[in-house]
Amino acid sequence: MANDLPQPLQAEVDEVAADRERGASELARHSLEILATAAHTAPADSAATLHTLLNALATALMAARPSMAPIYNLLHCWCKELEKPAAISLDELRTEAAAHAAQLIQASREAVERIAVRGAQLIQPGETVITHSFSSTVVAVLEKLQNQSIQVIVTESRPRCEGYQLAQQLSQWAIPTTLITDAQVGLFVQHADVALVGADTLLADGALVNKVGTYPLALAAHAQGIPFYVCCEQFKRRTEAMSPLELEAMDPAELGAPAYPHVTVKNIYFEITPARLITEWISE
Amino acid sequence: MANDLPQPLQAEVDEVAADRERGASELARHSLEILATAAHTAPADSAATLHTLLNALATALMAARPSMAPIYNLLHCWCKELEKPAAISLDELRTEAAAHAAQLIQASREAVERIAVRGAQLIQPGETVITHSFSSTVVAVLEKLQNQSIQVIVTESRPRCEGYQLAQQLSQWAIPTTLITDAQVGLFVQHADVALVGADTLLADGALVNKVGTYPLALAAHAQGIPFYVCCEQFKRRTEAMSPLELEAMDPAELGAPAYPHVTVKNIYFEITPARLITEWISE
Repeated sequence: MANDLPQPLQAEVDEVAADRERGASELARHSLEILATAAHTAPADSAATLHTLLNALATALMAARPSMAPIYNLLHCWCKELEKPAAISLDELRTEAAAHAAQLIQASREAVERIAVRGAQLIQPGETVITHSFSSTVVAVLEKLQNQSIQVIVTESRPRCEGYQLAQQLSQWAIPTTLITDAQVGLFVQHADVALVGADTLLADGALVNKVGTYPLALAAHAQGIPFYVCCEQFKRRTEAMSPLELEAMDPAELGAPAYPHVTVKNIYFEITPARLITEWISE
Repeated sequence: MANDLPQPLQAEVDEVAADRERGASELARHSLEILATAAHTAPADSAATLHTLLNALATALMAARPSMAPIYNLLHCWCKELEKPAAISLDELRTEAAAHAAQLIQASREAVERIAVRGAQLIQPGETVITHSFSSTVVAVLEKLQNQSIQVIVTESRPRCEGYQLAQQLSQWAIPTTLITDAQVGLFVQHADVALVGADTLLADGALVNKVGTYPLALAAHAQGIPFYVCCEQFKRRTEAMSPLELEAMDPAELGAPAYPHVTVKNIYFEITPARLITEWISE
């Protein structure tokens, strides 16, 4: 059982739980940064105390975002690498724990870079890419293509509209971009050559867990006969050890809809896209 | 060629062109009301002058909403029924023109009523219906089912969110309703027994023109194996005589998206759903 965390660390966990901007990989790297900082700075009178605290912090971070396999996988990997406290001094544990976190962050960044190279090879100069939501891995692919005369079609991705953030990034690279409502996704697939999305989690049966709205895009891409590529680092794979998949429901107030009796507003963030709709997984 | 319309009549045409709330049938009936009022009250010194004016008004109303076949069909029908002015006095023309408009409005309302009866027979007590956008014909079906323990899933239908209006109506009938973003449509089809939408236009090949977002709903219903029913009065059928189908693009500002260089916002209201995805047309 996790111990109660000191308030400043609990606040970091709460921030991860509440984060609606960052994708799963980014949040996993951010969680590792939180662990590295805690390894250096958390008050502890012995290696054993620090070890217990860091494990409790990692456990709380994993539990904060149950839909996001990368957080579980990277933090689980980090916990396993922590030396047993009996064999190590407090200062050594601080240094090693922070170094392990940095190594995993680096490995995650390298995975994104390898995917960006592979993804960019799959898209031809002059093609139009349609995407949904904001994926830092998709952004890495598009960055490589910024001088290849591509165009990009971006959905708003209600309710938080992180598509605006993606459009802003593409604007900075002078990539001609079309911004549409989520409802227009089926219409605009007809103007695209390739659909490209990120992943929050890859399921054991090859299905994708990603931001809600991904499944209609995949259906439309399939109907239109264009490839549907998913950028996905290997550590996004769900393992048996994880808690059952939970599709996180967020605050209905985010929709800004009026309240009426007998009307329930739903705001589920993630959905499953079946393996049969996925043309290719782009991984490291 | 249409004559220039007197300003008050042109204002009515402009209002029809700008209307984002009413569906095609409602706007067609509203256009007939405009014609009936003009028949009674438009200044004219002879039957010939009034005849020319009313024809010009009808032509302008038809041109105001090129995506909406019901406006074309009902107004074309009305024009054909107008007596030649040589055979009739000014007062007789006023009376007859207004009466024809009233008859067509009545015929349109009766068509909706027949569809409501048929549509209600296709939905079993206790079933969950998913719909998109606001269709007065779908509302007529759901009204008949208000004591049948049905539930309804309603999309927002960005950018104008006419789904809120539908949710409000269902709330008044105490029908348990779930309101979702357009992006959640694929996820929530899995909780529905039946998909039911209205139509702006029925194409010659059996395809449907309806509010954008209808096609993803139809794809998801097909993938999920639930029926996709379309409520559609016969006068929504496009004929050869109409101008080529144009999917109306509306003001991009309706999205409320930030402006960035190289980013174009698109706001197309209608899209085509192919006949193969439609389980059954419910018509009068």
